Amino acid sequence: MAPVTNARVLFAAVPKDFPIPGETTVHDTTQTIDLDNVPLNGGFLIKTLVLSIDPYMRGRMRSPEQKSYSPPYTIGAPILGYGVSLVLRSENPDVAAGKYVYGTVPHQEYNIMPDMQGLTLLEKHPKLPWTVFVGAAGMPGAYNGSFSASGVNELCFQERPRTLAGKNSRTQKRRSSDWHLYFRQLTWFFQGETAFITTGAGPVGSMVIQLAKRDGLKVIASAGSDEKVKFMKEIGADVAFNYKTTSTREVLEREGPVDIYWDNVGGEILEAALDNANLYGRFLECGMISGYNTGQKGIKNLNQMFAKSLTMYGILVFRLQPKYDKEFYEVIPSALASGELKYSEDVSRGLETVGDVILRVQEGRNTGKAVVIVAEE
Amino acid sequence: MAPVTNARVLFAAVPKDFPIPGETTVHDTTQTIDLDNVPLNGGFLIKTLVLSIDPYMRGRMRSPEQKSYSPPYTIGAPILGYGVSLVLRSENPDVAAGKYVYGTVPHQEYNIMPDMQGLTLLEKHPKLPWTVFVGAAGMPGAYNGSFSASGVNELCFQERPRTLAGKNSRTQKRRSSDWHLYFRQLTWFFQGETAFITTGAGPVGSMVIQLAKRDGLKVIASAGSDEKVKFMKEIGADVAFNYKTTSTREVLEREGPVDIYWDNVGGEILEAALDNANLYGRFLECGMISGYNTGQKGIKNLNQMFAKSLTMYGILVFRLQPKYDKEFYEVIPSALASGELKYSEDVSRGLETVGDVILRVQEGRNTGKAVVIVAEE
Repeated sequence: MAPVTNARVLFAAVPKDFPIPGETTVHDTTQTIDLDNVPLNGGFLIKTLVLSIDPYMRGRMRSPEQKSYSPPYTIGAPILGYGVSLVLRSENPDVAAGKYVYGTVPHQEYNIMPDMQGLTLLEKHPKLPWTVFVGAAGMPGAYNGSFSASGVNELCFQERPRTLAGKNSRTQKRRSSDWHLYFRQLTWFFQGETAFITTGAGPVGSMVIQLAKRDGLKVIASAGSDEKVKFMKEIGADVAFNYKTTSTREVLEREGPVDIYWDNVGGEILEAALDNANLYGRFLECGMISGYNTGQKGIKNLNQMFAKSLTMYGILVFRLQPKYDKEFYEVIPSALASGELKYSEDVSRGLETVGDVILRVQEGRNTGKAVVIVAEE
Repeated sequence: MAPVTNARVLFAAVPKDFPIPGETTVHDTTQTIDLDNVPLNGGFLIKTLVLSIDPYMRGRMRSPEQKSYSPPYTIGAPILGYGVSLVLRSENPDVAAGKYVYGTVPHQEYNIMPDMQGLTLLEKHPKLPWTVFVGAAGMPGAYNGSFSASGVNELCFQERPRTLAGKNSRTQKRRSSDWHLYFRQLTWFFQGETAFITTGAGPVGSMVIQLAKRDGLKVIASAGSDEKVKFMKEIGADVAFNYKTTSTREVLEREGPVDIYWDNVGGEILEAALDNANLYGRFLECGMISGYNTGQKGIKNLNQMFAKSLTMYGILVFRLQPKYDKEFYEVIPSALASGELKYSEDVSRGLETVGDVILRVQEGRNTGKAVVIVAEE
C-alpha cells in the first residue's frame, strides 16, 4: 500500500494567555507514513481512535525553563495526550495487532510506539464506546477513586514510604497493615457532611458528585452554564448553580458551611470556599483552571487554614494510577454501562478539531468530557 | 487600705494598618480599686505579674463585623491576653489566695475573675521566672508539641470525632485504638528530611527548631535580623538566614527541597516554600504575620499543591491545649530549666509599655518572646 497521510497536531507557539487554534497548535497534513513497511524496531504501530482533551494540557504548553509536574510540549513536535488506539502491527510480544491500548500518545493519526511504557491494554466493552475510556472510564474518571473510601485517602501519601525507602525512616518499622489503616483514614469523611464540588458537570466533578451522594453527603455543585447546572441536578447534586450568574459566596453562606471542598478551579471560588469552610474542613486540590491561561489569582485568605483547622490535600491522579488501575477497570466501566454511574460527553470529530477543542475546554465551553474521535476502527 | 490605681490598657481604635501606641491602645490610670473590700461575688481577685504579647493579638483588634477564630476586642474595654497572675483574695474553693493562675486576662493591674474558666493553676518553679510561663512554657511553647511525634499529628483532627458525635458517622464504629494510630501517623516525618522553619528566633519557631533537630531533621531557619540568625544557629539550625538581606528563594533552591515547612509568616516566603517543596511535602500553617497589618498578599502558586502532592495543615494551639496541658507541664518546664531546651526573651517592664511592645511584635523588632513584667509579687 502506498504511503498515506499521517496528520498531526504540532505545538507551534507558547500561548500568551488562551491557546489559539492555528497559532498555538497547527494541524499539519504534510507527513506521510507507509503503514505496511514502516520499520517498527521491536515496537508497534498504532492507529489513533479517540483523543482526550483535558485542562492540564495547557500546563504543558509552556517554555521549557518553567518547571512543572509534567514535561513541556516541544515546539515543532506533536502535542501529547491521552487516547485510545488500535494496534495495526507489532513486533512486541506483549501486544498483538488487533489489541487496543490506552495512554499518552502524540496527537498523530498513526504512531510507532517503542514499548508499552505509559500504555495499558484495554478490552473492548460491549456497551461502551471508546470515548468513555478517555473520560469517565479513563484518566479523569480515575479521580473517582479520590472520593471513595479507598480514594483520596491514599492519593497524597501512598507513595511516601517507597519514595523514602533507603532512608532511616520511622515508617519502615511499621507493619504494612498499619499503613493500610493510615491510608484509609486520611481524609475520612462523614455521612451528613456537606461537600462543595466545582466543575461539577465535567468528567472529574460529575463523578465526584455521584460518589459523594452515594456516600451520604449533602452536595453543593457549581459549573458555568445553565445546561451544566441541569446535568448536575440530574446526577444528584442537592444544590447546583451557575457560578457566572449566581454568587458562590451567597450559595455557600446559605447552604454551607463546607466540610469537603473539591477544587478544580482555584481563584475567587477557592477564596469563597475558605471563608465558608467548616471547622476541620478538608480541601481537595485537584486543579485550578481559573488561572491556567491568565495567571493564578493570589489567594488572600489562607489564614483560614489555621483559623478553622483546615487540611488541604494536593492530589494528582497519575501518581495513584499504577496502584488502582486494576480495581478501577473492574468496577467503573460496568457501573457506567449499567447506568449506575452517569456521564456526559462533548464529542468532536477529526484531528483538525483538536486546537479548537483545547480552547473550548480552557474556556469551559465544553459540556461534559471533551473527546475527539480521530478515526473509526 | 485606701483604693489604689488599677491601671489598664484600653482598646481605643481599630488600627488602619499597624497598631499605634496611644491611638489603637491607650494606657489608662483613671481607675481605682479597693483591694480589701471590692466584692468578689464568689470569684477571686488577682494581681497581674506578667503579660504575654503575641502576634495573634492584632487579629483581635478588628471591627466586630469581621469573623475570626477569636472574638474581637471591645472598643473602650481593656485588651486581653495571656498572663500569669497572683491570687490576692478568693471566694472560690478551687483557688486560694497565694496561688498562681495562667490564662487569658484583661490587661489591668488587678482583675476580678468570676471562675477558673480559661485559667490554669501554675506551680512556682524554683529555677524559672514567671515570664517563661507565658513563653516557652506557655501558649507559644505549646506549639512545641506540634512538632513532636504526639504533636501536629493530632492538632487538626483530634476533635473531629467529638465534633461529629451524634452524626451517623463511620468514625464511631472505629475502636479508639485505631484513632490513636491515626493521629500518630497523620503528619509523620522522617529522619533525614529537611524542615524550613520561619520566625525561627521567636517562641514558637525556636522550639520547633530544637525539636526538629532532636528528631533528626536538617533544619533551615529564617528570621529578620542578624541577632536572630545568631540565636537560631546557637539552638541548632543547620542553615540560618536573615530573610531581609538574603533571598529565601536562593537559600531554599540551594538547601532544599523542603519536606516540612513551618509557616508563621505567609506571603512571599510561603510562595517560595511552595516552589521549593519536595514531592509529598507537608506544610504546617501556624500563622501569617506578614499580612496581619497590611493585608495578606495573595498566594499565586497554590497549584504546587497538586503538582507536588503536598498537604497543608492548619494548626491552632488552643484547640489542642486541653488535651496536652498535663503532658506539657510535666515535660517542658523542666527541660527549659535544665537547659535541654533553650529559649530567648525580650522583656519590658510596666503596663505602660504594652502598646509599644504590641507594635514591636507586629514589626518583628522583638528578639525572643515578648513579655511585659507588670508587677513583682
